[in-house]
Amino acid sequence: MILLSLSIIGEVRFLETRESVLSVYALGGLHEVGKNMYAIEYGNDIVVIDCGNKFPDETLLGIDLIIPDITYLEENKERVKALIVTHGHEDHIGGIPFFLKKLNIPVYATRFTLGLIELKLKEHKILRESELVEINAETNLSFNAINVSFFKVNHSIPDCLGIVFDTPEGTIVHTGDFKFDLTPVNGQHSDIHRMAEIGRKGVLLLLSESTNAERPGSTPSEQMVGKHMDEAFMRANRKVFVSTFASNISRVQQVVESAKKTNRKLALLGRSMVNVVEVAMERGYIDVPDGMLISQNEINDYAPEKVAVLCTGSQGEPMAALARLSTGNFRGAEVLPEDTVILAAGPIPGNEKNVTRVIDHLFQLGAKVIYGSGVSTGMHVSGHGYQEDLKLMLTLMKPKYFIPIHGEYRMLFQHRALAEAVGVEKDYTFVLNNGDVVDIQNQEARHTRKIHAGNTYVDGVGVGDVGDVVLRDRKQLSEDGMLVIVLTMSKSERKLLSNPDTISRGFVYVRDSEELLRDVDGLIKKTVKDYQAQNKTQHWGAMKQDLRKAVGEFLFQKTRRKPMILPIIIEV
Amino acid sequence: MILLSLSIIGEVRFLETRESVLSVYALGGLHEVGKNMYAIEYGNDIVVIDCGNKFPDETLLGIDLIIPDITYLEENKERVKALIVTHGHEDHIGGIPFFLKKLNIPVYATRFTLGLIELKLKEHKILRESELVEINAETNLSFNAINVSFFKVNHSIPDCLGIVFDTPEGTIVHTGDFKFDLTPVNGQHSDIHRMAEIGRKGVLLLLSESTNAERPGSTPSEQMVGKHMDEAFMRANRKVFVSTFASNISRVQQVVESAKKTNRKLALLGRSMVNVVEVAMERGYIDVPDGMLISQNEINDYAPEKVAVLCTGSQGEPMAALARLSTGNFRGAEVLPEDTVILAAGPIPGNEKNVTRVIDHLFQLGAKVIYGSGVSTGMHVSGHGYQEDLKLMLTLMKPKYFIPIHGEYRMLFQHRALAEAVGVEKDYTFVLNNGDVVDIQNQEARHTRKIHAGNTYVDGVGVGDVGDVVLRDRKQLSEDGMLVIVLTMSKSERKLLSNPDTISRGFVYVRDSEELLRDVDGLIKKTVKDYQAQNKTQHWGAMKQDLRKAVGEFLFQKTRRKPMILPIIIEV
Repeated sequence: MILLSLSIIGEVRFLETRESVLSVYALGGLHEVGKNMYAIEYGNDIVVIDCGNKFPDETLLGIDLIIPDITYLEENKERVKALIVTHGHEDHIGGIPFFLKKLNIPVYATRFTLGLIELKLKEHKILRESELVEINAETNLSFNAINVSFFKVNHSIPDCLGIVFDTPEGTIVHTGDFKFDLTPVNGQHSDIHRMAEIGRKGVLLLLSESTNAERPGSTPSEQMVGKHMDEAFMRANRKVFVSTFASNISRVQQVVESAKKTNRKLALLGRSMVNVVEVAMERGYIDVPDGMLISQNEINDYAPEKVAVLCTGSQGEPMAALARLSTGNFRGAEVLPEDTVILAAGPIPGNEKNVTRVIDHLFQLGAKVIYGSGVSTGMHVSGHGYQEDLKLMLTLMKPKYFIPIHGEYRMLFQHRALAEAVGVEKDYTFVLNNGDVVDIQNQEARHTRKIHAGNTYVDGVGVGDVGDVVLRDRKQLSEDGMLVIVLTMSKSERKLLSNPDTISRGFVYVRDSEELLRDVDGLIKKTVKDYQAQNKTQHWGAMKQDLRKAVGEFLFQKTRRKPMILPIIIEV
Repeated sequence: MILLSLSIIGEVRFLETRESVLSVYALGGLHEVGKNMYAIEYGNDIVVIDCGNKFPDETLLGIDLIIPDITYLEENKERVKALIVTHGHEDHIGGIPFFLKKLNIPVYATRFTLGLIELKLKEHKILRESELVEINAETNLSFNAINVSFFKVNHSIPDCLGIVFDTPEGTIVHTGDFKFDLTPVNGQHSDIHRMAEIGRKGVLLLLSESTNAERPGSTPSEQMVGKHMDEAFMRANRKVFVSTFASNISRVQQVVESAKKTNRKLALLGRSMVNVVEVAMERGYIDVPDGMLISQNEINDYAPEKVAVLCTGSQGEPMAALARLSTGNFRGAEVLPEDTVILAAGPIPGNEKNVTRVIDHLFQLGAKVIYGSGVSTGMHVSGHGYQEDLKLMLTLMKPKYFIPIHGEYRMLFQHRALAEAVGVEKDYTFVLNNGDVVDIQNQEARHTRKIHAGNTYVDGVGVGDVGDVVLRDRKQLSEDGMLVIVLTMSKSERKLLSNPDTISRGFVYVRDSEELLRDVDGLIKKTVKDYQAQNKTQHWGAMKQDLRKAVGEFLFQKTRRKPMILPIIIEV
């Protein structure tokens, strides 16, 4: 009873003080690279930043996509006022369709980012009912006590923003993804003056991305790629294929420039390349000379030295254009001996094997392959700031408190060290997990509580209907297959009516394992007989357990494998 | 009839000329890094070089190990005279126990390599019946017309050899794995003078390893690691953990030296670390001061600044010492805040994720982690020669013909370019697949024919009993699980005796999918009823097919998943 009343008092107190607490947390993006989602709470308002997805690793069998678990936001539905999106990369927008199906709130993003979001919403058939609001670096928004403004940052996609939240407790800055490229392509400058001004006015808390916190030095400029691209195009005496991320419009622009200088037509291969370049052209983010673009069916109408091809698949994705080209499975386009193939993107960790498989196939076709692994080719620079870039951001903002975001643990820890090196006080940096809340009151920040956060798995059309039990079963099935045992038992006499049926899949070759399966048959009959002898056949649940155990142990001893064993009893 | 006689003539001709043909091929090691196995044939003699294993990638569900398919050697059993082993790494010796169980022939290897092979044979309980012959760089062997001699090479394990085969057709050289470290640790020098002599006498064909053919420059010396190791030990004011490959005895020696300089005791963690260091100490390949080694139970008996720990798990293997230390699951040893942990090995491609997971956990424990990804720490150098090393080998041997071995396609192609750069004639390099045979007659080499080569999968105690069908089933099970449908049918009346039973695993959460499974039930009954209506229930095979199709299509439409569907009909 006493405990109960204390808990009620606690609740009342919390409600009383809610108005004056500023809270910050991540629902995705910490201890991982992907599915970014952060939120700012003040009083009755919650503003959400980004809603990305993440691709599963090989332990998540059959899962297509991972998105943030937004249970907490659903429980506080009426308080969630806005989703503000920093830029159009998958790890920042890929979860939006799923999010909007649960919480239909306004989405704020820049012109180019909105174009990419619209493509997604169209695919999910929810574009019409969604409320999309275009913003730019000059926009001011207000959600009661939370005032929001923006600043331009440079990254590997156009139209990126950092966000400033002015609250009664002080100013919070979220950097988005950024690097400081002082000679960017397409005029995508970082607004360093505005950043300096924000810092001068005082920043209570900075959230800054940590992707490259492990890499010393400064990120090279995107212009470096243009120079190498030009050289490769000039050296090439047959077709040139370039594979990169469709969303890296600056790099696409550089390929256009190289094609122009060498009088080549340009074909676009791969659905996302075609879609994204279309969005970029419509909205004025890329400049393609009239008559340069040709369709994939026209490639063979031109001499090989007059054609360039821009395609998806730089990560070795088995169904994307480059992988299909590498195995001769792309209709209308073919890589022939002496053609040049440029991989103008680094492999994201985990994709190395797929990428090198594609490279191997391209070599087999006789192509001249320009790729990055092991040999530095100058065909790719990172869109994320290295240590010096991160230190510059910290220096400009000079925050009192710091939360490194957007990265695995080791990156967050390295970023903390950088913050301390440029003057953030020790213990004023919070290395958090998703769901950890930093509460700020009277300009004092503390990490004391936790809200629910996690992964939601998307498998086919199912969102969240696959969880740990299903995955554990898939894992067992994937490693050692299964054995179904069907027993037909007489209801009245409680005995076996026929020989047990066993069916195995993914376990052993049946034709090579007749003896083994015969032994299993014998073992099953013996187990059932023991039950009959002890007159326990009413306990069929227990008998199933015993069958599973006896057969499982026998098979492990004989094969060192642990197939899933499924006894099924049919009563007749 | 005419075709038949031609084929007989061909066969006779082949038998007549067999004596004077020299043949070279790989049974493993081409288009892959791993499971190295090469062979030289002359007349009635086959000499095999190395017998390695390879670890499966994530597509080979449940497979423990891959070894070369040796069907061809089994078919030519009486001609196989010897297995010569260049050095003791897993990708060169890991298949030996499986090989010897099929073909019990003499194994020739150096003292240290034999020590590692013996460990394996002991585990497989076949040490006693195996014939192991110790050789060194001065040994000469003779198998009828094939005369074999050796030369010392430097690599990341002691006691490595290159092999020279003198045959009536000319000299073939196999380099083994190598780099040119001119200041090696433990006196493991390359015998450049002997190599020069071999080259001066004339080499018909060189087989040289290609692992680092993509990397420009020369491999740094192992001594570089010692310097950085010393510095890290001196800076450390608590325990130091170092993780590396047990077989890299030179690096183990450097850890011993750093421990000696800082007055630390040294504990060895992990079975292979204990075993391999024991072999190295017994056979004189490492020098450990008396009293330095302590057991894992004694670690806490000393002040933290007086202890160093050498452990396995540098590749992030989940069951190895470092991964268990990183999650606090190693009995007797613990990583505490401010301890130093050094990863003194680069991640092998494909292991990056496991390695970074371990690093993240170590950061969470508060350790100072020194690791290589992204930041160059000087704690690891490759054991394989870079481009300049490979060119030096080609220059020393100046072969007429060249076969790049030991690498993926792109490495083999890059190595061919290096060979041409130092003077091997165009078209005199053979980029081959496993099983491709180069026949040499009258000093002319041609690649014309192919023998059987492939992968043998080891799963538990089964060798070769898991193949494509089993793996395909495992893949389907792993992605979408399965659904078993049990129909109890009356034999006489040919109709359903009860409701169908459906059991699913790894597909959906049953409690969330009641409606779906109810619909499946209805669909099954309808399908059966249709068969009855058409009086076709004698065709139960066809009915199963139809059930599989109908239920499969329905589930795909509803869930976008394709579980394995197993209809089972019980006749009563």
